[in-house]
Amino acid sequence: MRMVDLIEKKREGEPLSKREIRFIIDGYVQGTIPDYQMAAWAMAVYFRGMLPQETAELTLAMAQSGDQLDLSTLGKRFVDKHSTGGVGDKTTLLLGPMVAACGVPVAKMSGRGLGHTGGTIDKLCSVPGFRVELSREDFLAQVKKIGLSVMAQTGNLVPADKKLYALRDVTATVSSIPLIASSVMSKKIAAGAQGIVLDVKYGSGAFMKTLEEARVLAKTMVDIGKELGRQTIAVLSNMNQPLGRAVGNSIEVLEVADALQGKGPQDLIEVSLELGAWMLVAGEVVSDVEVGKERLRKSLESGTAWDKFLAFLSEQGGDAQAVANRRLRVAPWNLPILAQETGYVQPFDAHRIGILAMTLGAGRVTKESSIDLGAGVVLAKKAGEWVEAGEPILQLYGRDKGSLAEGLQLAQFLVTVGSEAPVLPPLIEEIIR
Amino acid sequence: MRMVDLIEKKREGEPLSKREIRFIIDGYVQGTIPDYQMAAWAMAVYFRGMLPQETAELTLAMAQSGDQLDLSTLGKRFVDKHSTGGVGDKTTLLLGPMVAACGVPVAKMSGRGLGHTGGTIDKLCSVPGFRVELSREDFLAQVKKIGLSVMAQTGNLVPADKKLYALRDVTATVSSIPLIASSVMSKKIAAGAQGIVLDVKYGSGAFMKTLEEARVLAKTMVDIGKELGRQTIAVLSNMNQPLGRAVGNSIEVLEVADALQGKGPQDLIEVSLELGAWMLVAGEVVSDVEVGKERLRKSLESGTAWDKFLAFLSEQGGDAQAVANRRLRVAPWNLPILAQETGYVQPFDAHRIGILAMTLGAGRVTKESSIDLGAGVVLAKKAGEWVEAGEPILQLYGRDKGSLAEGLQLAQFLVTVGSEAPVLPPLIEEIIR
Repeated sequence: MRMVDLIEKKREGEPLSKREIRFIIDGYVQGTIPDYQMAAWAMAVYFRGMLPQETAELTLAMAQSGDQLDLSTLGKRFVDKHSTGGVGDKTTLLLGPMVAACGVPVAKMSGRGLGHTGGTIDKLCSVPGFRVELSREDFLAQVKKIGLSVMAQTGNLVPADKKLYALRDVTATVSSIPLIASSVMSKKIAAGAQGIVLDVKYGSGAFMKTLEEARVLAKTMVDIGKELGRQTIAVLSNMNQPLGRAVGNSIEVLEVADALQGKGPQDLIEVSLELGAWMLVAGEVVSDVEVGKERLRKSLESGTAWDKFLAFLSEQGGDAQAVANRRLRVAPWNLPILAQETGYVQPFDAHRIGILAMTLGAGRVTKESSIDLGAGVVLAKKAGEWVEAGEPILQLYGRDKGSLAEGLQLAQFLVTVGSEAPVLPPLIEEIIR
Repeated sequence: MRMVDLIEKKREGEPLSKREIRFIIDGYVQGTIPDYQMAAWAMAVYFRGMLPQETAELTLAMAQSGDQLDLSTLGKRFVDKHSTGGVGDKTTLLLGPMVAACGVPVAKMSGRGLGHTGGTIDKLCSVPGFRVELSREDFLAQVKKIGLSVMAQTGNLVPADKKLYALRDVTATVSSIPLIASSVMSKKIAAGAQGIVLDVKYGSGAFMKTLEEARVLAKTMVDIGKELGRQTIAVLSNMNQPLGRAVGNSIEVLEVADALQGKGPQDLIEVSLELGAWMLVAGEVVSDVEVGKERLRKSLESGTAWDKFLAFLSEQGGDAQAVANRRLRVAPWNLPILAQETGYVQPFDAHRIGILAMTLGAGRVTKESSIDLGAGVVLAKKAGEWVEAGEPILQLYGRDKGSLAEGLQLAQFLVTVGSEAPVLPPLIEEIIR
C-alpha cells in the first residue's frame, strides 16, 4: 500500500477501507508517512468528505493510536461530556457536581483554552492549590471515592489526534467536519466513554457559525457513536452571546459557585440541566430527560451539588474555602464600559467578547502564551436587557494597564443600545441522537 | 503574510494576488515554507484551479526562482518548442535540423525520459561520443555557429519547479492543469523563449487521455503566454499510437536519420512539419504556416536538414558517421511478434507500447533506473495497416533474455488483427493560439 495512492483515491472521492485508514493513521503516528502527504490527504478530505463508516473507522484508529482508559472498574456505565467550545462556557464546572450528586460518576479529561474560547483546566487553576495533573490511579480513585474528578489530558492519549491537529492548524484543514468529528470522538472513546453527551454550539461565539453547520457536525458525531456502539446524544445550543455573565477564569469559577448556591444565571443553568439530564439518561439512572432535569434541580436546591463541588476542589488540593468565601484573585486593573444611551442591549458578536477577554490576559494567543487567571470581562448587561444611559454594560479586568488600554479599544463599540427589544433565538435548539 | 492564510484563501476559491504568489514560491524555494504547507496548497489548487492571471504569475515566479538564460545575444527572435510527451516522440530530433536549416536558431534544453515516455537526451546519448552536458557558453556559441544545439537541463534552472514537481509526485497533485501548465511554461520562459510552440498530445500514449483535457491544458498554456507577452502556439496532436515505428533510443535516432533522408514515416513528418512551420512563423521568417511547411519540405529534399543534423552531432562530439552508416548499437536479444490472422491491424493502447519498451530496457521505472540505449520495440505494422498471418507485427529488442521474456508477456495480446479497417482520428486535431 502506498500513501500517494490513498491520497489520490480520496482526491477522486472514493471511500477508503478500514485497512487503508489504519495504514494512514498508524503510518502517520509511527512517522513512516510524512507530514506533507498527510497534509495533502487532509485537504482532499476537506473537499471530498468521508462516509459515516469511514469517519467511524478513522475515529477508532485514532482512539487506538495511544493509551486507552479502562473505566469498567468504576462499576457503572461511564458517561462523558464534550463541548465544541464557546465564550464563557463553564458548564462542565456546574453540571459535573450536579450529575455526580445524582449518582453518575464524572471522570473528565479537559484541555486548556486557546484563542477566544476558554478551557476548564485554566478555570480550575484559578483555585489556589488545585492540582490538574493527576496520575491515572489517583484520578480513578477519586472518581470511585466522590464520583467526580477533572484532570488535564495526559500525554499519550490519542497521539494521532495531537499530531494531526497540529498539522491541520497550519495547513488550513481544521474546518473539515469528518476531521473535527473524529478528533472529538476519538478522545472520548480513548477515555473509555460508553455514553457521550455533546454540547454542539453554534453562533458568533462558537466554532460553527451557523445552525446548519452545527447540525451536520452533531449528526456526524452521533453517527460515529452509533457505528462504534456508544450511545451519543448531541444538544445543539446557541452561542450568540456568552453563557452567564463572566468570561475569564477566576471570575467564571465564582459565577459557578453562585449558580451552585441557587444564584445562577438562568441561561447557564438551563444548558447545564439539559446536558446533565442527558448524562443521567445515558448513565441509565433515569429513563426520561425531564425526570433527569428534576433530579438535577433538586441537587441544586438541597445543596448536594454545592457540597460535591467543594469536596471535589478539596480532594484535588484546592482551597475550597477560598471559593466559598469568594476570595479568588481578580485582576486589579479594572474599568467599566458605560451605556451611552438608554434602551435595550442589542445582539453583539460573542467572538469579539472572547477576543476582548483574551486581550485583557484571560486567554492564549498561541499555545505558549501565559495567561492571567484573574483577568477577563463581566457582562453587566446581556443582549435583550434594559439599560439606562451611564450604567455599566461591561466590566473589564486587565492583567496590566497596557492590556486594559488595549481592551478598552476593543470594548468601546462592541455592545450597542437600541430602542427595540431584540428577538433572541432559543438557547437549546435541538437534540440529535 | 502567513502561508496558512493563503492556503485557506485558495481553499475558499479566492484568487491569490501577484504578491501572495511570489511569497509562496520564494518562501518554498528558500525553505521558509515547509513541504506540508505547500502540499496542502497544491491540493487546494487541484480542487479550486487558478485564474489565467494567477497561473501566469505563478509561472513567472517559478521562472525567476533560479538562473535565466538571456538569448538576446543570438540576435534573432528565439523560439522554443515543448512536447507534453508521448510514446516514440522523436519530433525534436527531426524538426530541430529542419527549422535550423530554415534560419531559425534552435537552442533546446531537454529532459531525460521517465515512465512510458522517452526523453530526447536519452536518444542523443545513443550516438557514440555525443555530449549532453554543455556549459552555457559552449551551448550558446554552438547555436551562434550552426543554429542548433540540444543540451540536458542545467541544475539551477527553475528550482521552484524541480522542488514542487517532486512534492506533487508523492502527494497526488500532479494532474492539476494550472500546475502542469505553469511547470512547462516556467521552464520555457527561464530558457529565454520569446516564442513558444507547444505539442500538446492526447490519447492513450499521452499524459492527457482525452482531447478535451488536452484542449484545456493547451488553452491554459497559451493564456499564460499571452499574459506574459510570449507568442504561444499549441498544436493538439493525436497520440493513440506512437509516432513513427521505433520506440526506444538508438532505434529512434536511426528512424530520424531515415526521415531526414526522405525515407521518413509519414506521421512523424506531418507532425514535424506542422510544429516546425509554427516555429518559423513565431521566429518571423515566414508569415504563413503553409509557406513554412513548404520551406521545411525543401530543407528535407535539398539535404540541408540532413547536413545540419550531421553537423549538430559532430559539433557536440557525436560520431555522425556512425549515424549516417546506421552503425548505432541495437540490443542483440530480439524477437518478432507475428500476426495470428490476416487483416487490418486494430487500434491498440500506445501507453502499453511505452510500458513494453520500458520493460525491454529502453525506459526508466524510477529516476534512478539505468537504461539500455539499444533496447526498444519497432512497430512493423501500425493501426490500420494490412498484415498477413505469420508476418511480424512487432519486433522486440531486449537488454537481456529476462527482459525479453517479460516483454514477450506484455506484447503477446497487445496488437490485434480484424477484418474491418479501423477509422483513425486525424493526426493534427487543432491549433490553439
